[in-house]
Amino acid sequence: MSPRRSVAAARETHSAIVERAAVVASTEGLEGLTIGRLAADIEMSKSGVLGHFGSKQALQLSVLDLAVSAFGREVWESTSDLRSGRGRLLAICDTWISYLDRGVFGGGCLLTSTALEFDGRPGPVRDAVASALRRWYELLEAQVETAIALGELPTEAEPAAIVFQLAALAMGANQALQLFGDRAAMHTARDAMRAVLSGCSHKRAVGPPPAA
Amino acid sequence: MSPRRSVAAARETHSAIVERAAVVASTEGLEGLTIGRLAADIEMSKSGVLGHFGSKQALQLSVLDLAVSAFGREVWESTSDLRSGRGRLLAICDTWISYLDRGVFGGGCLLTSTALEFDGRPGPVRDAVASALRRWYELLEAQVETAIALGELPTEAEPAAIVFQLAALAMGANQALQLFGDRAAMHTARDAMRAVLSGCSHKRAVGPPPAA
Repeated sequence: MSPRRSVAAARETHSAIVERAAVVASTEGLEGLTIGRLAADIEMSKSGVLGHFGSKQALQLSVLDLAVSAFGREVWESTSDLRSGRGRLLAICDTWISYLDRGVFGGGCLLTSTALEFDGRPGPVRDAVASALRRWYELLEAQVETAIALGELPTEAEPAAIVFQLAALAMGANQALQLFGDRAAMHTARDAMRAVLSGCSHKRAVGPPPAA
Repeated sequence: MSPRRSVAAARETHSAIVERAAVVASTEGLEGLTIGRLAADIEMSKSGVLGHFGSKQALQLSVLDLAVSAFGREVWESTSDLRSGRGRLLAICDTWISYLDRGVFGGGCLLTSTALEFDGRPGPVRDAVASALRRWYELLEAQVETAIALGELPTEAEPAAIVFQLAALAMGANQALQLFGDRAAMHTARDAMRAVLSGCSHKRAVGPPPAA
């Protein structure tokens, strides 16, 4: 095998391991990954798998990288043709729900589950998922700020509060689908996201409604 | 020790094990529980702990029971003095956020994390958490139905959609607190829950807002 060919083959094996690990992690969590089981799944030796990553944690971080890239590509980059602002945010609601609905790695959203799995365990995996989610929320906040500047959302809208609600609704959609197989909740989530972006939810509820 | 005394002592030990296990599970997940570590934590032998539960799964189910009871007592039963309807729902938003904010078992919401941890693993733990969450959502839906019947929420309000949004916002609050230590998000979540119960979010967003 030529040196170039062997580098390409090593990369391919590396990718195959990470992709298989993402499928396992998407149903059993990043802590559920074991080098032994993964090696059996892809018909390699344990030392062969370890040779590519060195440690379980390095493998977990590679899986998280893959999940972040897939999420970024499918939810964010696929809307890059659109002008920043409310229109792009509405499109993102669709790509986000579609991403959850398709169960890209066979199970639920790996970012959401890793965040919950590692929020109580300080270390590089927790740092990586927190940083990826923070970046995502900041990207969305910038879109909300643009929408406000363009007059597409009311000036009193709070970017952080809007993004909090969109992210929460995505978590709700993920639970509904993974725990209850409830596809109808995808529409509910999408409608609720659109309501958040309609400017309606920024009005304060002052006292009881008229009929109460 | 008299028979009565020994039964009481066994119950006390049983409770002490489950309570300690809930603390561990609330940061490391139900799968992160090991009989060995738990035995060391509470200074018992492994066989002593196993004698109380028989299996790791039985222990996991007991922890889940404890979490469901605590949640029910703190979020639901603490509002039982209130008349059913929108007023009780508003009070529940407060008790729910307060429950998350206090981190009852030292970490995040055990129901939310167990749902995500087990949604891809069929079996008794998954069934138990799905059933507990379903019961909770049904209780809330009945409150929304009462609020609609009393004219406290618009007749076109959809109970399942409202409950979906409340639950999603609680998940968002849990992530914000556990992953980012963001206490300000508790107010954001509470305000957003109140907006959902203001009847505002049930208006459909028809076309772009006036300024767009």
